[in-house]
Amino acid sequence: MRRLFLTIQYDGSAYHGWQVQTNALSVQEAFQNAVEKVFEKRLDVKGCSRTDSLVHANMYCLSIDTEVNIDPENVILALNTYLPKDIAVIDCKEADFDFHPRYSCKSKEYVYKIYNGKIRNPFLEKYALHYRYELDEKYLDKEAQSFIGTHDFCGFCSIKSDVEDTVRTVKSISVKREGDMVLITVEADGFLYNMVRIMVGTLLFINEGKIKEGELKEIIESKDRRRAGKTAQPQGLYLNKVNY
Amino acid sequence: MRRLFLTIQYDGSAYHGWQVQTNALSVQEAFQNAVEKVFEKRLDVKGCSRTDSLVHANMYCLSIDTEVNIDPENVILALNTYLPKDIAVIDCKEADFDFHPRYSCKSKEYVYKIYNGKIRNPFLEKYALHYRYELDEKYLDKEAQSFIGTHDFCGFCSIKSDVEDTVRTVKSISVKREGDMVLITVEADGFLYNMVRIMVGTLLFINEGKIKEGELKEIIESKDRRRAGKTAQPQGLYLNKVNY
Repeated sequence: MRRLFLTIQYDGSAYHGWQVQTNALSVQEAFQNAVEKVFEKRLDVKGCSRTDSLVHANMYCLSIDTEVNIDPENVILALNTYLPKDIAVIDCKEADFDFHPRYSCKSKEYVYKIYNGKIRNPFLEKYALHYRYELDEKYLDKEAQSFIGTHDFCGFCSIKSDVEDTVRTVKSISVKREGDMVLITVEADGFLYNMVRIMVGTLLFINEGKIKEGELKEIIESKDRRRAGKTAQPQGLYLNKVNY
Repeated sequence: MRRLFLTIQYDGSAYHGWQVQTNALSVQEAFQNAVEKVFEKRLDVKGCSRTDSLVHANMYCLSIDTEVNIDPENVILALNTYLPKDIAVIDCKEADFDFHPRYSCKSKEYVYKIYNGKIRNPFLEKYALHYRYELDEKYLDKEAQSFIGTHDFCGFCSIKSDVEDTVRTVKSISVKREGDMVLITVEADGFLYNMVRIMVGTLLFINEGKIKEGELKEIIESKDRRRAGKTAQPQGLYLNKVNY
């Protein structure tokens, strides 16, 4: 038996998130189908994280255990032959049996893309949130620094979640502009359900003056979901890095 | 009666080209549907060009004649409300009645995008040709210059075409790299059916040594479709500029 540690990328537009669902196609299921073709057996695929419907991944890590002896380079080639074109394996290596893609993870980084052009861009419809109003990225970058540190983020978590420990440590956050694109990048030791999307929605409220300068700290401490912003649309969100 | 001249952009992934088809959705039909909602009448929409299935447009021009008196700025807003998200109107102005989006056009520019990474990129699947082998863009740029000038391009035209005059003037062509992306940009007074895609396929044959250095001139003069390269996939092709 051996454990393989794989890094993949996917365009999540056609999928109902990572995790296997009844009645809806998930990335995990599409991946398991390809694994079954290559390894001639339905193997358990362990992922590093759930992701929401329509969310993308520039980097997503997973592991599979197998007795089949295929060279990691050939695992990449074989899986990419059978995977749908919107999922690609970009790396594969051997891992120890105490390695787990989810529990061994030290931190994750998400990036949220906002297209800030006046008129919508048809090519970005599934790949960024379209926000047509003026956006002051420098002001938001400054205000966003209140997220940094160890906080109880239960005000930044969808009520659908039943996680008990809602304390997380945000290591860094930045709001940067590249032309008409604004990128919000957040690294944390872990994320609650919809946490990044609510953080982004809250920053947009700050941009619109619905939340005042310096008020964010208080909103985090209030642990009150109603004081944070709306949950931003999923299609702008990318799992960007997984650190072990 | 007035003539409106509109500039649009579209992601062609979901469409069977510009022109109305029986049993398949075209950009023109989707556009006419939106026009009907805004102008409360099914109007004739005249486009600047046919485009193939799955081909995109960074800039596409069209005209409509109407008696309805809506301000051009509001035409943009209203149409964008009713258009599917993969089509956007980016400009609208009044035009003279002797203006025709197709016949008044002086030249068009296409760009063809080649993703030259070793492993496929799931985000570029519908937006670029994936070419995994080494690509010498400087050599191709030099060889491509043979396309420039007025030639009978009937060797660079799909046999499905029944156009009589196959003489066209290529004004400029370039092959440029931006990281893993290679962009082939061609401007001409007009293009034959599949012409850019066959030009690109021919450049890839040159890259692979299947066509020798300096041989392209002779292939153009031969007017023999069998001597040119394969027709490159449609999803890398973008109508990029329309000059009047």
